[in-house]
Amino acid sequence: MSKINKVVLAYSGGLDTSAIIPWLKENYDCEVIAFVADVGQGEEELVGIEAKALASGASACYVADLKEEMVKDYIYPSLKTGAIYEGKYLLGTSMARPIIAKAQVECALEVGADALCHGCTGKGNDQVRFEGAFAALAPQLTVIAPWREWNLRSREALLDYLAERDIPCTASLEKIYSRDANAWHVSTEGGVLENTWNAPNDLCWVWTKDPQQAPDIAETVSVLVEKGEVVAVDGEPMTPYNALNYLNSKGAEHGIGRIDIVENRLVGIKSRGCYETPGGTIMMEALRAVEQLVLDKESFEFRQTIGLKASHLIYDGRWFTPLCQSLLAAADTLAQDVTGEVVIQLYKGQATVIQKRSGNSLYSEEFATFGEDDVYDHSHAGGFIRLYSLASRIRALNSQK
Amino acid sequence: MSKINKVVLAYSGGLDTSAIIPWLKENYDCEVIAFVADVGQGEEELVGIEAKALASGASACYVADLKEEMVKDYIYPSLKTGAIYEGKYLLGTSMARPIIAKAQVECALEVGADALCHGCTGKGNDQVRFEGAFAALAPQLTVIAPWREWNLRSREALLDYLAERDIPCTASLEKIYSRDANAWHVSTEGGVLENTWNAPNDLCWVWTKDPQQAPDIAETVSVLVEKGEVVAVDGEPMTPYNALNYLNSKGAEHGIGRIDIVENRLVGIKSRGCYETPGGTIMMEALRAVEQLVLDKESFEFRQTIGLKASHLIYDGRWFTPLCQSLLAAADTLAQDVTGEVVIQLYKGQATVIQKRSGNSLYSEEFATFGEDDVYDHSHAGGFIRLYSLASRIRALNSQK
Amino acid sequence: MSKINKVVLAYSGGLDTSAIIPWLKENYDCEVIAFVADVGQGEEELVGIEAKALASGASACYVADLKEEMVKDYIYPSLKTGAIYEGKYLLGTSMARPIIAKAQVECALEVGADALCHGCTGKGNDQVRFEGAFAALAPQLTVIAPWREWNLRSREALLDYLAERDIPCTASLEKIYSRDANAWHVSTEGGVLENTWNAPNDLCWVWTKDPQQAPDIAETVSVLVEKGEVVAVDGEPMTPYNALNYLNSKGAEHGIGRIDIVENRLVGIKSRGCYETPGGTIMMEALRAVEQLVLDKESFEFRQTIGLKASHLIYDGRWFTPLCQSLLAAADTLAQDVTGEVVIQLYKGQATVIQKRSGNSLYSEEFATFGEDDVYDHSHAGGFIRLYSLASRIRALNSQK
Amino acid sequence: MSKINKVVLAYSGGLDTSAIIPWLKENYDCEVIAFVADVGQGEEELVGIEAKALASGASACYVADLKEEMVKDYIYPSLKTGAIYEGKYLLGTSMARPIIAKAQVECALEVGADALCHGCTGKGNDQVRFEGAFAALAPQLTVIAPWREWNLRSREALLDYLAERDIPCTASLEKIYSRDANAWHVSTEGGVLENTWNAPNDLCWVWTKDPQQAPDIAETVSVLVEKGEVVAVDGEPMTPYNALNYLNSKGAEHGIGRIDIVENRLVGIKSRGCYETPGGTIMMEALRAVEQLVLDKESFEFRQTIGLKASHLIYDGRWFTPLCQSLLAAADTLAQDVTGEVVIQLYKGQATVIQKRSGNSLYSEEFATFGEDDVYDHSHAGGFIRLYSLASRIRALNSQK
Repeated sequence: MSKINKVVLAYSGGLDTSAIIPWLKENYDCEVIAFVADVGQGEEELVGIEAKALASGASACYVADLKEEMVKDYIYPSLKTGAIYEGKYLLGTSMARPIIAKAQVECALEVGADALCHGCTGKGNDQVRFEGAFAALAPQLTVIAPWREWNLRSREALLDYLAERDIPCTASLEKIYSRDANAWHVSTEGGVLENTWNAPNDLCWVWTKDPQQAPDIAETVSVLVEKGEVVAVDGEPMTPYNALNYLNSKGAEHGIGRIDIVENRLVGIKSRGCYETPGGTIMMEALRAVEQLVLDKESFEFRQTIGLKASHLIYDGRWFTPLCQSLLAAADTLAQDVTGEVVIQLYKGQATVIQKRSGNSLYSEEFATFGEDDVYDHSHAGGFIRLYSLASRIRALNSQK
Repeated sequence: MSKINKVVLAYSGGLDTSAIIPWLKENYDCEVIAFVADVGQGEEELVGIEAKALASGASACYVADLKEEMVKDYIYPSLKTGAIYEGKYLLGTSMARPIIAKAQVECALEVGADALCHGCTGKGNDQVRFEGAFAALAPQLTVIAPWREWNLRSREALLDYLAERDIPCTASLEKIYSRDANAWHVSTEGGVLENTWNAPNDLCWVWTKDPQQAPDIAETVSVLVEKGEVVAVDGEPMTPYNALNYLNSKGAEHGIGRIDIVENRLVGIKSRGCYETPGGTIMMEALRAVEQLVLDKESFEFRQTIGLKASHLIYDGRWFTPLCQSLLAAADTLAQDVTGEVVIQLYKGQATVIQKRSGNSLYSEEFATFGEDDVYDHSHAGGFIRLYSLASRIRALNSQK
Repeated sequence: MSKINKVVLAYSGGLDTSAIIPWLKENYDCEVIAFVADVGQGEEELVGIEAKALASGASACYVADLKEEMVKDYIYPSLKTGAIYEGKYLLGTSMARPIIAKAQVECALEVGADALCHGCTGKGNDQVRFEGAFAALAPQLTVIAPWREWNLRSREALLDYLAERDIPCTASLEKIYSRDANAWHVSTEGGVLENTWNAPNDLCWVWTKDPQQAPDIAETVSVLVEKGEVVAVDGEPMTPYNALNYLNSKGAEHGIGRIDIVENRLVGIKSRGCYETPGGTIMMEALRAVEQLVLDKESFEFRQTIGLKASHLIYDGRWFTPLCQSLLAAADTLAQDVTGEVVIQLYKGQATVIQKRSGNSLYSEEFATFGEDDVYDHSHAGGFIRLYSLASRIRALNSQK
Repeated sequence: MSKINKVVLAYSGGLDTSAIIPWLKENYDCEVIAFVADVGQGEEELVGIEAKALASGASACYVADLKEEMVKDYIYPSLKTGAIYEGKYLLGTSMARPIIAKAQVECALEVGADALCHGCTGKGNDQVRFEGAFAALAPQLTVIAPWREWNLRSREALLDYLAERDIPCTASLEKIYSRDANAWHVSTEGGVLENTWNAPNDLCWVWTKDPQQAPDIAETVSVLVEKGEVVAVDGEPMTPYNALNYLNSKGAEHGIGRIDIVENRLVGIKSRGCYETPGGTIMMEALRAVEQLVLDKESFEFRQTIGLKASHLIYDGRWFTPLCQSLLAAADTLAQDVTGEVVIQLYKGQATVIQKRSGNSLYSEEFATFGEDDVYDHSHAGGFIRLYSLASRIRALNSQK
C-alpha cells in the first residue's frame, strides 16, 4: 500500500471518531478531513461539531445537509419496493449509509484525498455498507477501518487515548446503550437487550412514548400518496423530509413504530435491537393501503417479492449495484398507479388505516357485491373454475385408473 | 350429464343452503344429504341443525367434528410457512375450506352419492376452493353450484321460495353484513364496508373488543413452541384446538387481531372485509419470534418466500395439489429448529413479543457484543467485505478505464 | 348485448378466418373488416390476401406491416428478461399476439368498429392472449370468438359452409399439422405429435434442416450486442428484423433451434409441439454469453428470476399489464451493461458460443488465475469463509451442547 | 490456537497435496493422515496412492469408496431440483465436495484428529465448500488451508520443496490446464481459456469426443425414471453409479455434455472453464422430459424456482444447511409423480428426447386436440378468460373515465 496523504473520515462527533482523528494522524502520518453528514440525527449531535473536529486534530470539517435528499432519493424509492427486513425492520440505519458514503466520497474527490475512513466496528453491518459503497463509487481510494486494526477495544481505552493527547471529550465512561439516529429512525442496542429473555425497559426507547402512556384519545392523520410517494399530509403539501418530520412527531406522541427484533446481520451473527420509526411506520401503512386498492393480485405479489429481495440488498449495503437499481426500477414502474388518499388512526402504539380511496382503484362496490353487473357475470365463474382446476382433475382421474 | 340420484350438500343451516335443499330436489329430482362441518363456527350455528336440515327436506344430516383436525393438519402446517395473504390476511376462511370439502367428499363416497353441492356465490373465492378440492379428490362426482344456476338472487326471493314450500325459516329479510366463522377467525363483509372511504363501525367486529374499550392494563401470555407448533400456553400443554381457543379468548379481550383489508379475490375482483383472528395473531407472533432466534439469514428469507407463495396457494384453494404439498414439506423441514418460548404482551389491539429464548438460538450475547471471542474475530470482516464487494470494485474499475 | 354493426376480424387468409367472415355477417348482421398483421409469417400467406378477404365478404381488408416493430418492441425487450417458457420454449407465438391485438384494436378504433373477432380455438392459449390484450386496450369493444360459439367443428364442416356460399377456397380437406409462423419462429402441432411416444418425423419441421442433413462443416457467425440488443451481425449493423432474418437463414441451414416439447397451456391442459426458432436461438445464446461476462452473481440470478416470471406473463398473454411492464423495466436496467461481442459456431443443430468479450467484462485473467494481484488477496478468503459459514458453525456448536 | 497433534488431509495424490504433507509436519509439528475420497475420478489417480502418501510422509492413508453414495445421496437429490448454475453448469465439482468433506470429517473423528486440511487455493470455490461443510459438521476441529498461508506460489516452488526433501514426485513442471474429475464430470481451466476471446482447443476437453469427430450415425438410449430417479437404462435396472457410468460412455462417444462457461465464483471473481458431463446431461434431459408430462404449470414453475435457488446453495457449499435440506425436501415431494420412460437420441453433441411417456402424464391426446370431450368444454374458456383478464378490464375502464 502506498503512502496515505489525506484521509476523509465519516465523523460523528462521538467518542470513537474523535479518537480516530489523532490515531490516523499518528499511524498513517496523514492529514485528516472530518466529514459530517446531516441526515436528521438531530441538533444535539451537530451543534459545535466543527470546533470539536478541529480540536481533535482534523485539518478541516465539512458538514453536508443531506436530509431532503435522503428522504427523496433513498427512502422514497425504497418505500415503493415495500422493503422490510426480516418481516419487521424498516431499514432505518441501512438506508442512510449509502447517501452518507456517497457524499463522503464526493468530499474526498473534491479535496483530493487518497483514503476514506469510517468508525464502524468489525462485527456490524455498517462497515460493509460503507465499504460496499466505497468499492462501487471510488475503488481507487484506500479504505481505513480503525476498529479492525487498532487495539483500543473499550471506552476506557479510548478515553485514555484522548486524555493522553489532551483532546477534550465530553463522553462518559459508562454508556450502556449504543444508538444510531437519522430522520427516519433511531435504534438502540446493548444493555438489557443483550439477553433476549429480557423485556426492553424504558431506556431502550428514545423517541416514542410508551403506548401505555400515550393519549387515551385516538387521533387521525390523512396522507396523500402520488405515484407511490407521500406528497401531502393533513391536507398540506409537504416536501419528503417535512412530511416525515410531521408524521414523526404525530407518531411518536402515540407510541407508533416500535419494534424489538433479533435480526441476522450480514456478517453471520445475530443481534438484537429496539428500533423506532414513528413517521415511517405511518408512511408505510399509507402506501400499502393505496396498493390494496390499485394493484392486481399478481402485481401485489410481485411487489412483495421485490420488497423481500430489496430488503436484503438495502440491508446488505448493495444500494449502488445494478441489481438494486433494477429492483428500484421495477418498483417504480408498479408505483405509477399508486395514487390515493388514506386516513390513519393513531392510538396507543398502532397506526390503523380506516379510510382509503383512489382514482385508480380496482375495487368497485358494484362488482364486489351480490348483484348482477355488466362486468362480472356469475356464469363466468363456472368456466373459470373448470379450467383453473383442470390439472387437478386430470391428475385425480389418472390416479383412479 | 347423466341423472343425479343423490347429492351431498355442504349445509350451514343458513338461508341459502336451506333453500338449496328443496331446489335440488325439484330441479334434479334427487335425494339430498346435508353435510355439516363443525370447524368451530360456534354452538349457535349448530344447535338444532339436524332437525332444520330434515325439515327443509334433507333425507339425512351428518355433522362431523373437524375442529382438532383443522387446527392440527391444516392450520399448523400453514403457520409453519408463515403464509399471510397480501401482507395482512391470516387466511381464516381459506384454511377451513379444504378440510370441509374433504370431509364432504368422504361423506359422499360413503353414502354413494353421485354429486356434491355447495352454497357459495358466483363472485367469491369459496366456490373455487370447494370445487378445486372436489376436482382433486373426487373428479368423478358432479358438482352443483346453485348460485351460478338459479335465479333466486335476493334474500327476499329465497324467503319467498321457502315460504311457498312451508319450510320453516328464522332468517330475517334484512341482513346487512355477511359473515363466516371458524375456530381461527370470523370475517365480516358488506354494509358500510362496501365503500372503502367508510371507516368500519362497531357492527363490523364480532369477536374482539374495540381496542379503545379493551383493558387499560396490559396482560402477558407465554407460548411454548416445538418444531414450529404451539404445544403449551401459559405453562399448560394444550391440544392445537384448545391452545387456539385459549388464545382466542385472551386476544379478543384485548382487541387483538383485527384487520380491515381490500384484497384481490381469485376471480379477478377486489373485495373488502374486516377479519378478526385474535388467537391466530398471537400464535403467528410467537412463531415468528422463535424464528428470529433460530433461522439464519438465508433460511429466514426462504421461509418468507415460501410464506408468500403458500399464501396464494391456500387462498386460491390449491391445498390438494403437489405444489402446495411441496411448499408444506419445505416449511416443515425448516421448522424442525423452531423450538422455543416467548412471552407476549397483549394491550389494546397489539400483541407484542417482549421475551424470547430457544435452545437452538443462533443469537449469542458473546458474539454480538463489542468484545473479542473465539468464534468471531474482527479481522475476519476485512476479508469478508473485500470479497463481498469485489464485483462492485471490478465494475467500478472498469468504468474508470 | 347491444347490436354489433362493424367487426374487425384478425384475418389470416386460412380456412377458419375465411369462414368466419360470412358467419359473422349472417349471425351478427354486421359489416366485417379484415385486419391482416404482417409479422413475418411469409409471402405465401400474404399474397392475394386482400382479394381473398373481399371475396369472402369482407367490406375492407387492411394489411399492417408490423415486422420491425415486433422484433424491436416486443421481442428485444423479452430477450433481455431471458424468458424461456418451461425451460425450452422461446415464446414465438406468444410474443406476436400482443402486437397483433394492439394493431387490430387501433384499426377498430380508426374504422369505428364496435367489436373485435379472432379465429382462435377454445382450447388454446391464443384466445386468452388476444382477449387479454383487448381487455387492457379497448374494454368497451365486444369480443366475438366464433370457435366458442358455432358448431362448425371440422374442416369438412367449414369447407361445406364456404362451398354452400360459393366462396372460393383453396384449403384442402386433409390438413394433418397445424402451424403458426412469424419472423421469430414456426410451430407445428397435431398429426403424429399427438402421441408423446411418437418421435417427430420430417413433416414436423418446416424451416430448419434436419441436423443429420446439415452441412458437415461448421460455420461461425459473429454477433454484436449493445445494451442487451443485437445491433450487428458478421460485422454489419442491422435493424432488429434484418438481424433476425439473417440469423434465421444461417441457423436454419445448420438445423439450429428445434425443440419438441410438451407444455402446460394456460387453459389447464398440456399440448405437444415442435417449434423452430433458428435465429432466435442464436440471439439468445449471444445475449446469455455477454451476460456471463458482465453480470455479477446476484444480478445473474435475478435476471434468471425475471426471465422465469416473464416467461409466464408473456406466455399467458399478460403483456399489457403493469406487472409485465415492471419486469421489462427491471430487465432493461440490468441490460445497460450487456454490451459485447460473441462468435458462435453453428454445427448440426447446435449453436455454441466459442469466443466472447466485453468492455464491461467483470472477468479478468489477472484476478482469476493463480498468482497475486492488487485486487484479490488470498488472505481475504479466510475471513470471508469464516463469516460466510458462521451461522452453520454456531448452529453446529449449539447442537453439540 | 492450541497445538495441533493430528491432521486429516484431503489427499489427491497430486503435486499440491503431496507438498502439503511435509509442510504440515514441519509447520505444525503434527502427524498427518491422508484421506482419499474415491468419487469416480478414475483409476489412474488412485493406483498406488497409498504408497505415495506414505512416501510423502503421511502416517496413514485411508481410501473411501464414495461412488455409489455420491450419486445416490448427493447427485440424485440435486437432480430432482433441476439445479443448473447460471443456466449452464451441472455442478459437477460442487456436488462432490460435501460428501468428500463429510467422509473426511468422519475419518478425523475416528482417528481422533484435531484438525482438517485441504489443498484448495485461495481464489476458488472449493475452499468455501470444504470449510462450509467442516463448520457444519465439526466446528470444533481446526481448519488448515495451506494455500492461504504458505508462500509456495508456483509449481516450480512446490517441486523444489519436494526435491529438497527427497520426496519422489512424478509431476511435471509444466501443467497448462487444471482439472478436476469425478463420476459426474471433468472440468478444465487455465491455458488458452484464460482469455475469453480464445476458443477452446482440443486440450480443453478430456472425456468427450469432439462433436465433429463423433459418429455420423445417431444412436438412441432409453431411460426409465421412477420418482425423479434414473432406475434403468436401455431396459437394464442399474444402480445410480452404474447408470451414470453407462450413460457417460454413451454420451462421451457422441460428444454430449460439453460446456464452455464464464461463471461467477462465490468469492467475487469470474472464472472460465470447460466442463464435460456426458452422462449427467442425458440424465438431466430425461428427468426434465418426464416432468413435462407430469408437472402442472405452477408446479413446473416452482420446480424451476427451486432449481435456481438450489443451484446457488450447492455451488456455494451450503449442502449441510437447513435451507438446502428444505429445498431438497420440496423437490423430493414434487418428484413423487416424476415416473416415466424416455428415449433420447445422441448425435454429434446433442442429446434430444424424441419419445416420452408416463402413467402419470397430464397430457391427453383427447383433451389437447380439436374435438369435444367430457373433461374440457370449449365454452368453459369464455368464462375463464373473462375472469382471468378482469383486473385488466377494470383498470382500462378506470383509465377511460
